[in-house]
Amino acid sequence: MAGAGAPHHPSPSDSSARRSWWGWGTEDKALPDAECAALGRLVPGAADTPLPVPAVSALELPKVRVEPPAALAPLMSAEPRDRASHTYGKAYRDVIRALRGDFAAAPDLVARPGTEREVADVLDWAAGAGVAVVPYGAGSSVVGGVEYRAGSHRAVVSLDLSRLDRVLEIDRVSRAARIQAGALGPGLEDQLRPHGLTLRHFPQSFEFSTLGGWLATRAGGHYATLYTHIDDLVESLRVVTPVGVSESLRLPGSGAGPSPDRLFLGSEGTLGVITEAWMRLQERPRHKASATVLFADVHAAMEAVRAISQAGLHPANCRLLDPGEAALAGVARDGASALVLGVESARFPVEGRLDELLTLVRDHGGSPVPSEPGAPDAAADTWRSAFLRMPYLRDALARMSVLTETFETACTWDRAPGLYESVRERLGDAVRKVTGSPATVNCRFTHVYPDGPAPYFTVVAPGRRGQEIAMWDEIKSAAMEILYDHGATVTHHHAVGRDHRPGYDRQRPEPFAQALRAVKHTLDPAGILNPGVLVDPTALVDPAAGKA
Amino acid sequence: MAGAGAPHHPSPSDSSARRSWWGWGTEDKALPDAECAALGRLVPGAADTPLPVPAVSALELPKVRVEPPAALAPLMSAEPRDRASHTYGKAYRDVIRALRGDFAAAPDLVARPGTEREVADVLDWAAGAGVAVVPYGAGSSVVGGVEYRAGSHRAVVSLDLSRLDRVLEIDRVSRAARIQAGALGPGLEDQLRPHGLTLRHFPQSFEFSTLGGWLATRAGGHYATLYTHIDDLVESLRVVTPVGVSESLRLPGSGAGPSPDRLFLGSEGTLGVITEAWMRLQERPRHKASATVLFADVHAAMEAVRAISQAGLHPANCRLLDPGEAALAGVARDGASALVLGVESARFPVEGRLDELLTLVRDHGGSPVPSEPGAPDAAADTWRSAFLRMPYLRDALARMSVLTETFETACTWDRAPGLYESVRERLGDAVRKVTGSPATVNCRFTHVYPDGPAPYFTVVAPGRRGQEIAMWDEIKSAAMEILYDHGATVTHHHAVGRDHRPGYDRQRPEPFAQALRAVKHTLDPAGILNPGVLVDPTALVDPAAGKA
Repeated sequence: MAGAGAPHHPSPSDSSARRSWWGWGTEDKALPDAECAALGRLVPGAADTPLPVPAVSALELPKVRVEPPAALAPLMSAEPRDRASHTYGKAYRDVIRALRGDFAAAPDLVARPGTEREVADVLDWAAGAGVAVVPYGAGSSVVGGVEYRAGSHRAVVSLDLSRLDRVLEIDRVSRAARIQAGALGPGLEDQLRPHGLTLRHFPQSFEFSTLGGWLATRAGGHYATLYTHIDDLVESLRVVTPVGVSESLRLPGSGAGPSPDRLFLGSEGTLGVITEAWMRLQERPRHKASATVLFADVHAAMEAVRAISQAGLHPANCRLLDPGEAALAGVARDGASALVLGVESARFPVEGRLDELLTLVRDHGGSPVPSEPGAPDAAADTWRSAFLRMPYLRDALARMSVLTETFETACTWDRAPGLYESVRERLGDAVRKVTGSPATVNCRFTHVYPDGPAPYFTVVAPGRRGQEIAMWDEIKSAAMEILYDHGATVTHHHAVGRDHRPGYDRQRPEPFAQALRAVKHTLDPAGILNPGVLVDPTALVDPAAGKA
Repeated sequence: MAGAGAPHHPSPSDSSARRSWWGWGTEDKALPDAECAALGRLVPGAADTPLPVPAVSALELPKVRVEPPAALAPLMSAEPRDRASHTYGKAYRDVIRALRGDFAAAPDLVARPGTEREVADVLDWAAGAGVAVVPYGAGSSVVGGVEYRAGSHRAVVSLDLSRLDRVLEIDRVSRAARIQAGALGPGLEDQLRPHGLTLRHFPQSFEFSTLGGWLATRAGGHYATLYTHIDDLVESLRVVTPVGVSESLRLPGSGAGPSPDRLFLGSEGTLGVITEAWMRLQERPRHKASATVLFADVHAAMEAVRAISQAGLHPANCRLLDPGEAALAGVARDGASALVLGVESARFPVEGRLDELLTLVRDHGGSPVPSEPGAPDAAADTWRSAFLRMPYLRDALARMSVLTETFETACTWDRAPGLYESVRERLGDAVRKVTGSPATVNCRFTHVYPDGPAPYFTVVAPGRRGQEIAMWDEIKSAAMEILYDHGATVTHHHAVGRDHRPGYDRQRPEPFAQALRAVKHTLDPAGILNPGVLVDPTALVDPAAGKA
């Protein structure tokens, strides 16, 4: 057990590139106006000029309604930039509202505790004062997870955990580390790298999301099989609840009652604030091989992916891009689908396993794209850089009043082809009805399991300036209806937040909903934690506890 | 989606071999008196003659305290053999008490519902009448999971699910099946076999335990890595709770809030009765390879197993037997430890993967035992047949008043060597203190994870007739103390039941305990379901609901 006490590398939040308060990532990577306009010209019907980005100083923020006690005041900020940047996540509708200067929902204060004790102190004060607390990792939610909407609390504090960003302990023997919840992806990997270890959890939001956020929302990494959800990487959790600290035993496996960790995983800040976790690590891979495979028919491609997922080969990457998605990413043309395959190992050469994968895909009509021996796979690299740049392009298109958003799900294999066709048809119709224009609806499979894939859809269509949100909400509502009809989940790895509540409430079993309400009431009796997420807040406000 | 409506193969419970009412398995496999005595002679200090097996007709059972309503009467039995066989599980202490004719805890009635509706009807009646309901799969619990001890209910019904034993639906595309909870291992595999599929979950109790029991107790199969706990094989659950039926969506993966299934997995019949589940299946393996590896030093063997578990090779079998265990199983002598390795695949040859495993074990000082090419691995077969025969031998030794029991756990690798030595030393001392004789304390690793093993200990020592239970309880209590001191779980796959409650209460986080009590109170407001398991019954009895 080695302490990891040395000062760690600066995480991106410390660096000179300032985080955007209205859009994705850092300000320096946002597209300039001219590039936004050029991008907009690719979407017939888009606006001619980009929505302007207002100055923070020009924003009208609601009056701060609460004053923190003296002991907590040093942790609290009421600075306009802090309040504005903590009002929303990074969904399409968040970006549009931020650009419009709609900050009615801004938190009164942003708290930045530096210790777990300070987290508990903030909760104690808030519970007594009837103040809502919205836990905030790095704000990459695309489902309204960090946006206060309940309206019934005296005030709102955004609880920003970014100062709790350290790897506290490393157990090299068991390959695990105790990590604080506020650590961003790059920061925690920087601290693990000197030990030759990696958490190997790489969501698309990796640079701008935290361990605590991943745990609270059951995030998915970009690996396609085996260890996809963060859930499986958890050895134990430490959670500050309003009624006390919950800490589970560090265990590789256990059968002692229902898993305590699984109750907090996915609880989205409603039951407590995750402050640290023992996470399972891996050695950094030394052997890698990858290939891109083209399919003339998307359904044949799906069958190939199903065969791979059921063959026990566990590729690290197994990402299917449908024709539209493959064309956009520049990895295939002429209506071909592309399958990006990757295998890796820290110990043994992996060429044999890649050969087994290619045998399977050839049996299903796939054509591997020849690549230079030893050269990196060009299509995979093209896809990967497009993947990381995507959210910045999304923001640029949003500024051109283009509707551009994604939604993701999972379903069993027997339902996948029907779901795919249904989304393309029915959602295409819905978009045409809403926008009057033909829709781009693309799909990729981000994760695949032996019993089903996780399809991820992208929608692009021209919106009307000033009506973007109403238009998108109508399209999203149609999308949720299609998922429901096909028995697909409301979310595979984007979480429920506030935007998915209607679908979530239909999907979860009613006795479980009752159980969750009881847990909420027990652990958060004053109903202050992320109100409106997972559980209805009105049923919970305890008049004796809230002073509102 | 293919219906599996054809009549299924008879399950062992239908067959002529009658289940034992006092011990493991079927009556025909119990050792005759002479063999018991011969076995006893191997343990110095054992009794000279076996405890007699009483006739069922001679048992003194308590008076039946309740009469079922007419509509439910046809499902209910008050036959002495039914009541006796449903009083206990199959722990050592259960066998001893059954042989002694101690049936004060016998259920008043045994209910055998044939439909889910009848399960719900039994719960409705019981909740109204203040009658405790103990869900019963096939009664293989070794932790007091099916034994009523609360003492505060008007009467007790054992809810035997054995009639709900069908595979109802098979989805070959997604490789999943909807299976009723009362299906025994062989019965459900018989129904899957014609489809070329298998659940591939083989606990030691396979013949005499049910899907519902596996789910309720988070059972572990005999595969050593990757898919070990039944938890990971679950696509969705259907659970009858006293407040309604909970059914989760069939999904390969989801991030929509905390997992509903994970709340019921491990709930041990306290929150509801699992009636069916969609389970993930696999194709039957066509390629297999195995090897046995000897190590002169047990700690070197542990290091080799750690290296394997962390190399991403996922062997199907990776079972380490310490010197005592290896000698007993007849696979090694002279203080050597034995590692039994197996790899398998439905699609591809596995020799390459076995070679990779053997490279790793040689690097750690292991010596593979040469075997004829193509011949089955003799040591593995020896071990496997001993494994299945073990519980019958345990019963025979119990009849000779030998203390003979197991306990199992899991811990991280950094703690494993210390735990192993501590159990051998401190538990050895405890056994000597209790029995006055030297102890046999052996260990095997039944499951291994990248971050730690699941050690399984066997204790054998001569007891004193009439004092076996008090003696074993003292030893078990010492064992639990050692596990606690080493941060090891109270159970990896045997569940909590009533016997592990003290350790479980120390181990689980307090806020989670509060949450679980709230869930219990919400889903089982009358406090009738398996009272005393996981949650304290006295805190739950609702005077308005119970008529006791």
